[in-house]
Parts: sequence; structure tokens; C-alpha cells
Amino acid sequence: MVNKKCIIRLSRYKNALTRLKAFGFVKVFSGNLADAAGVTSSQVRKDFSLFGITGNRRGGYNVDELINRILEILGKNEIQKVALIGAGSIGTALLKYKGFEMGGIKIMAAFDIDPIKINPNADTPILPLEEFHDFVTKHSIRVGILAVPDIAAHHVSEIMIGSGIQGILNFAPIQLRGAEGVIINNINLEVELENLIYFVNASEKTGITR
Amino acid sequence: MVNKKCIIRLSRYKNALTRLKAFGFVKVFSGNLADAAGVTSSQVRKDFSLFGITGNRRGGYNVDELINRILEILGKNEIQKVALIGAGSIGTALLKYKGFEMGGIKIMAAFDIDPIKINPNADTPILPLEEFHDFVTKHSIRVGILAVPDIAAHHVSEIMIGSGIQGILNFAPIQLRGAEGVIINNINLEVELENLIYFVNASEKTGITR
Repeated sequence: MVNKKCIIRLSRYKNALTRLKAFGFVKVFSGNLADAAGVTSSQVRKDFSLFGITGNRRGGYNVDELINRILEILGKNEIQKVALIGAGSIGTALLKYKGFEMGGIKIMAAFDIDPIKINPNADTPILPLEEFHDFVTKHSIRVGILAVPDIAAHHVSEIMIGSGIQGILNFAPIQLRGAEGVIINNINLEVELENLIYFVNASEKTGITR
Repeated sequence: MVNKKCIIRLSRYKNALTRLKAFGFVKVFSGNLADAAGVTSSQVRKDFSLFGITGNRRGGYNVDELINRILEILGKNEIQKVALIGAGSIGTALLKYKGFEMGGIKIMAAFDIDPIKINPNADTPILPLEEFHDFVTKHSIRVGILAVPDIAAHHVSEIMIGSGIQGILNFAPIQLRGAEGVIINNINLEVELENLIYFVNASEKTGITR
């Protein structure tokens, strides 16, 4: 069954492959990818067989072919267009983040309500929030990144969903709930860090279960 | 059993409580917290009973008492000190991120190898990487944030672990593996976004299982 974890592993294999390719590797073995993704070799082979990818036990997989096949599965042989709302510190960092472009993802524009931040001539244009609906409609964008303060997050998510956005990567520190047919992926940096701190403190005290 | 998901929920309850308190609420019910954290009321009560927190079915929980109790469990009645390595775009955004301070987490200093970025007089000092070991030893810091490019990530994680860091929040787009007694929490923004894109595309085509 194709589930979220399986797709996350495919992304990781693809990232590892892109790096191996940059270093001049032509062949790769399931053990290499297992290592890079932090799973077992048999997990790699299981994932691949799910998508009908076959290798040669002795010869391994061809790096180029494997990258193309995974990109095909991830629907990424064409550039994936996304829109960002919120050009604050997190939003600005995401605009500069090299990893997205390497992965074939392009932030087409950012949107904000603060007139000072508007800059239609930037590498990635920063536009007034009122233009969001028309922009994403015109460019057939269905995935958005939400990076606004907590107090605005729910309202902005409604604007996104009302404009036809079907997937939201949410950096605001509140849990957004999806609407029918909308997928929300909440990333809460504070919660992630708190969690780490808790277990570091706990392991010093007790050796608590992780 | 206290596991990672349970602690993540406690963090979310605490964040919701902090907001309710800011709006003047004195009492809260398990249903309010369930709503804010995206779980069921019975889950909230189960989590609380695990830590011996009891409410009054009709009167609910006192917001202040509940915040204090959760902070105590999360080990956060004192400020949690962390150190950041990498003052690039993600690192700089994290330095400006308000959520940490609200949650009692303080980034004590950032470290970088780029002389241009060094600024010991900034609000959060930005220091040369060579000073990392002495700094974290002096300030008893055991949790670090890693925000350097992929190619440097493994080397930098070794410096952190060699300096006594026991928990790493890793933003570099490679999977870091922990050493004995070190907890690593990998946040890969590209993988998260790719995952979302995959399922948005897939649900348009097939209605695939998430």
C-alpha cells in the first residue's frame, strides 16, 4: 500500500540519488539508499517492488534511470509550482531555500498584507494578498505554503482553500484542520524542539522510552 | 507509556492553553484542548491521567494550573538553552522566530564558519564555529539546532556530539543518524513539501490512501 511514509522514503532515496549522481556515481545498490534514508535494504527493495522498479542484484540500479522513475512516481518530471503566503522571517528563508529548486519545486510568488514587503520585481515576486486568488487560478497552483503568524493562520488557510489550494504546508504554530479534499501538513518548529528537549532531559533522569 | 507522540500532544495542549490564557480564559475543558490539538477528548483525558493530572468533569481544568503542570512535565519551568550552528537563511529565520521564546526556549548563540556573519554584539551573538565547544560547555547546553548545507551536516553533527550535545534538531536535507545517547530529530522541508505535492496529485488522479 502506498502511504505517507513510503512516499517520504522515495523522496529521501531521490535526494540521495541526486547527490550520488553529482559525485559521478553511475550505479547504486539498495544498501547505499538504505544507508542514506536510514532504513534497511529490504525496505528499499520492498518500496521499489511496490512501484514495479526492478534492479539487478549484482549490478545494482542505474542512477539516472532510478532518478527518472522516482521523479515520475512523485509526479515531478514537470516543475511543481507552489505559492507562499507570509513574507516574514520563515517565509523569506523559504524563498532563499535552495533545496526546493534542486527538487524541482518552484515558489512562483509570495503574498503578504504588509505594503512594505510587496516587491513584484523580486526574483520571486512578492504580491499583495488580494492578488492570491487570481494568481493561483491563472497558474493552476494547487499547493501552498502558509507562513503567517498564528492569529492570522486560520483566516489565511480559508483564503487558500477558497482559491482552490488542495495542499497546505503550514508553518504557523497552530494545528490547522483540513477541509474536504484538502491535505494539511503542519510543521510546528516549537513543538519539534520542545519534544527534543523533553527527551534529552528525560534520558538524563530516567532513560525513558522513546 | 510516555512516547514521542504523547509529548508532542502535551506541547500542543500547552500552546493552546497559552493562547486561551492570553484571551482571558480561566477554565478549559478537555474538548477545547482536543479541538486545538486535533485529537479526541478522551485522548486528552488519557494523556492527562498518565501524568496524574485530574480535572473536574463539570468545572474543567484551571488554565494557569494546567499550564504550570505541563511546563513542569516538559521540564520547562526554567528557560531551556539551545545553540544554533549555521547562520544562513534558515538559521537566521530561526533566530527571528518568536515561537521559541514564547515557549521558554532561548537560542543562546549562533555559530558559523563565515567571517562575514560573525557578530558577537547581535541580540543573539553569532560566533565562530571554533568557539562552539567552549560555549556550550560553559553554558551547559545539551540541545543544538543544525542549519548548515547538506555537505557540511555530518561533520558539524560530529562537532556537536563531541561537544556534549545530546539532542539535535537537524534542518540539513540529509538524514543524520544519532550516536549512542544522542537524539536526532530530522526536519526535511523539501521532503515534507514533496510529500504534500504527491498526495495532492494522487488524490486528483485516484483517491490514493493516505
